[in-house]
Amino acid sequence: MRFLVLYIFIFLPATVIAQSDSADFRKLSDEVMLRGTCYDNLRVLCKTIGHRLSGSPQAEKAVEWAQKAMAEAGADRVWLQPVDVPHWIRGKEYLKLQMNKGGYKEVPMLSLGNAVGTDGKVLEADIIMVSSFEEYHKIPAEKIKGKLVFFNYRFRQDLCNTFEGYGDAGPYRWRGPSLASAKGAVGVIIRSVSTGLDDYPHTGSMRYADTVKPIPAVAIGNTSADELERALISGTVRAQLMSECKMLGTARSYNVIGEIKGTVYPDKIVVVGGHLDSWDVGEGAHDDGAGCVQSIEVIRTLKASKIQPRYTVRAVMFMNEENGLKGGLTYNDSALANNEEHILAIETDAGGFSPRGFGLAMTNAQRKQITAYRHLFLPYGIYDFEHDEGGADISPLQKRGIPCAGLRPDPQRYFDLHHTPNDVFEQVNHRELKMGAVALTQLVYLASKYGIK
Amino acid sequence: MRFLVLYIFIFLPATVIAQSDSADFRKLSDEVMLRGTCYDNLRVLCKTIGHRLSGSPQAEKAVEWAQKAMAEAGADRVWLQPVDVPHWIRGKEYLKLQMNKGGYKEVPMLSLGNAVGTDGKVLEADIIMVSSFEEYHKIPAEKIKGKLVFFNYRFRQDLCNTFEGYGDAGPYRWRGPSLASAKGAVGVIIRSVSTGLDDYPHTGSMRYADTVKPIPAVAIGNTSADELERALISGTVRAQLMSECKMLGTARSYNVIGEIKGTVYPDKIVVVGGHLDSWDVGEGAHDDGAGCVQSIEVIRTLKASKIQPRYTVRAVMFMNEENGLKGGLTYNDSALANNEEHILAIETDAGGFSPRGFGLAMTNAQRKQITAYRHLFLPYGIYDFEHDEGGADISPLQKRGIPCAGLRPDPQRYFDLHHTPNDVFEQVNHRELKMGAVALTQLVYLASKYGIK
Repeated sequence: MRFLVLYIFIFLPATVIAQSDSADFRKLSDEVMLRGTCYDNLRVLCKTIGHRLSGSPQAEKAVEWAQKAMAEAGADRVWLQPVDVPHWIRGKEYLKLQMNKGGYKEVPMLSLGNAVGTDGKVLEADIIMVSSFEEYHKIPAEKIKGKLVFFNYRFRQDLCNTFEGYGDAGPYRWRGPSLASAKGAVGVIIRSVSTGLDDYPHTGSMRYADTVKPIPAVAIGNTSADELERALISGTVRAQLMSECKMLGTARSYNVIGEIKGTVYPDKIVVVGGHLDSWDVGEGAHDDGAGCVQSIEVIRTLKASKIQPRYTVRAVMFMNEENGLKGGLTYNDSALANNEEHILAIETDAGGFSPRGFGLAMTNAQRKQITAYRHLFLPYGIYDFEHDEGGADISPLQKRGIPCAGLRPDPQRYFDLHHTPNDVFEQVNHRELKMGAVALTQLVYLASKYGIK
Repeated sequence: MRFLVLYIFIFLPATVIAQSDSADFRKLSDEVMLRGTCYDNLRVLCKTIGHRLSGSPQAEKAVEWAQKAMAEAGADRVWLQPVDVPHWIRGKEYLKLQMNKGGYKEVPMLSLGNAVGTDGKVLEADIIMVSSFEEYHKIPAEKIKGKLVFFNYRFRQDLCNTFEGYGDAGPYRWRGPSLASAKGAVGVIIRSVSTGLDDYPHTGSMRYADTVKPIPAVAIGNTSADELERALISGTVRAQLMSECKMLGTARSYNVIGEIKGTVYPDKIVVVGGHLDSWDVGEGAHDDGAGCVQSIEVIRTLKASKIQPRYTVRAVMFMNEENGLKGGLTYNDSALANNEEHILAIETDAGGFSPRGFGLAMTNAQRKQITAYRHLFLPYGIYDFEHDEGGADISPLQKRGIPCAGLRPDPQRYFDLHHTPNDVFEQVNHRELKMGAVALTQLVYLASKYGIK
C-alpha cells in the first residue's frame, strides 16, 4: 500500500502537468485556428502596404502598422527601437539580349540587392557563360575582361530540403559579382537562385569584396536562363543592360517590439520574431510578412487564452534582415547594453507554410529539454527537431550563447517565390499560416512556463 | 576472435542491405526530382482534357491518355479493364436568393453529384436554416414540409487533420438530402464541405435512402452561406432553384492498368493507384490527377532506375471513384475471378501536396515490417505511420484482408480546393507533387523487393 501511495505521489503531479500542457496546447491551437487574426493581418500588410524595403516609405508605413497590430493583439507594452539601415533603391532597369545576331529582346530581370547600377547608361557587352565556380576559376582573366559573366548555376532540385539547395546556389548571387569583377568583367547575370519552373527573377542580397570594383549584377528567371543557355551553346549573345539602382546611404528606421510581462521572471525574456522589411518586389508575403503576423499572433493568442507567461514574452519585428541585418544587430546591442537576459529566441523566417519542426541551436541539454515535449507537438504535425538553424535576425544573440530556435515549415514552395514579384498574399494558405502560428505559440508557451535551463 | 567473426557474419549483411536500400531510396528520389515527368503529365491531363466525370467524353479521352502515358512510362504491359459506371450529368443550373424581400440575386452553386434536378423548371420555396443534425431532428415535420432546408454546418477549422473535419461535415452532404426529404422538404442547400475562405461551391457525392423521394440538393460556398445565414437570422429568404442534372443510366468505361512483371514472384502483385475520373468542374488536379500521374511515375522511375522488382508492380488508374466506386469494385472482382494474389495495395488520393506519411491498414505484424524502414523515409519528410486509412478505390481489396496503405500528404489545403472549379493545375506545386511520387516509389520499391509477410 505504501508503494502505491508513493507511486501516486511521485507520478501524479507529472501526469497532471502533462495533461495540463496537452490541454493548453489544444486551447492555444483552437484560439489560433478559430479566432486567429494573422491571416487578416497579413492581408492588410500585403495589400495596403505591399513590399517594404528598408529605408522606403512603405517600410515606415509597415512600422506604424506593426505597432498598431501589436497593440491590438494585447501586448502590455509596444515600442519602437531605432535602427539605422542602408537605403538602397532600384529605379528603372532593363536587360536586352541579342541572341545569335537577331534583334534585341527584353527579358524579365532584377538587379541584385545592394548592387551598383549603370548610372542610367546602357552597358553593352558580350556574355560569357560559366556553369560553376569550379569552371570559372579555370578561365583566364583575359577571356573574362570586358564581358558580362553569366553564372548559369542551377538550383539543385534533387535536395529534398530546399534550404540546403539555397545554401548551395546562394554563393553565386552573394559572391559571383566580386569574383567576376576580380577578372575584369563589366557585369554579372545570374540564373536566379530559384526552384521555380517559371521566369520570375529572384533578387536578394549580394556584397562586393573590398578589393574589387563594384560592377552591376542582375538575376534572370529560369526560363530566360534556359533560353540564354541554349543561345550561348549555339552562338554568341550580346547584352544591353541599364539600371539606375544605387545605395543612397543610411536611413532611420525601427524594430517594432511588443511584450507581455512575465509573472514570475519579468526580467527573463523569451523572444519570438520575424522581419518586417522585404525586398522591393511582390508583397513580402512569405518573406517575411508571414513571420511578422505569426509573431503578433503569439502575443494575441496568449492574451486571448488568458495564459499568463511566467517569463516575459516578447515579439520582435526586426527591420533590415534582407540587406544589412541592422535590426538584429541593434536588438542584440541594446539587449547587451541594457543587461537583458534572454532565455530563448525563436525566429520564423522560412515562409508561412505548413510547419514541420523547429531547428534548435542550443546546448544538448537544452535541446533535450525541448525535445522531451515532442509528443505534445506531434498531433500538430511537428516532428522534426534534428536541425540546428535559428534565424538570421537572432544570429547575433545565438553567437553569444543564447539558445535559439527556428520554425521549420515545409520547404518545397519557398524558393519558387522567395524574393520575387510573385511572393504575394494569394500564395499564402490561411490554414498553413495559422498552423505555423500554433506551433510558435506552443513553443513560447512551454519556454515561458518552464524556462530553458 | 571467434566472436568478432560471428559479429561480422551476422551483422554485415544486414548493414549492407540497409545501405543498399538507402542508396536506392536516394537513386529513386533523384530520378523523380530531376527527371520526373509527373508534373508535365499532370499539365497535359488538366489542360488538354480537364475535368472528366465518369461517363463523359472527357473521361474517355482520359482513358486514352492514361493508356498512352503508362506505355511511355515503360510498363511491360498496359491494358484496359471494362467498368460499367453511372452516367450523371449536370446541365444548366442556378440558384437565386431573395433576401429580406429584396430582389432575387444569383449565387454560385453546384448541384451535388448523383442528385436529381428540377427537370429544368423553377422550384420556388422558402428556406429554413438548421445548423446541425441534432437541431434538425428536433424540428417537427410540418415546419420542414414544402421548404428548402439549408444545412448550415461549418467545417471544423480547429481540427489539424482536415480529413477528420471532412469525416465530420461530410454526412451533411451525403445524408442531408434524404433526411430533409423524409420530413417533406422540397430541396436542400448545404454549406459546402469546405475549409476555404471563399465562395467556391464544392460538389461531391450524395445518395438518397431507398425510402425517400429524391429531392434536388445543391451546395453553396462559404461566403454565400455566411450571407444567407445573416439574412435568415434577420428575416426570411425565398429561393428559386433550377437544375437540369440527372442520372442518365450506365456507361461503359475502363480502369487503366500497367505493370512491370516481378522477376521472382510474377504472380504476386503490389498495386499503386489513384482515380482517373473527377468531378465535372475544375480540372481534377489534386483530386485525383495528382494520384494518377504519381502512380505512372512509380512505373517510370523503377524502369528508368533499372530496378527490377521481385514482385509484380502494377499501377492502376481507377474509374468512377467519385460517384460510384465501380472501378475499385470491378478491379477487386476481377482479381478474385482471376485468382490474383495481391500483397499490398497503395492509394494516392489525398492531393498532390508535400507528403508526410502513409496510412497503414494491415495487421500489426505487417505494420511493424513497414515501420521498421521509417529511418529510410525520414530524410524525405515521411514520418507519420500512425493512421490506418488506405483509400476508397482499394477498400474492396482491404475488406478481404489485403494489406493496404494510403499516401498522407499535408492536409491543410485540400479541402479549400476539393470538388471545386478551383481544383486546377496551377494549384499543384511541382516539387510537392514529385515528393509524393518519391515516397510512393520508395514504398513500392520496398514491398516489391521484400514482399509483405
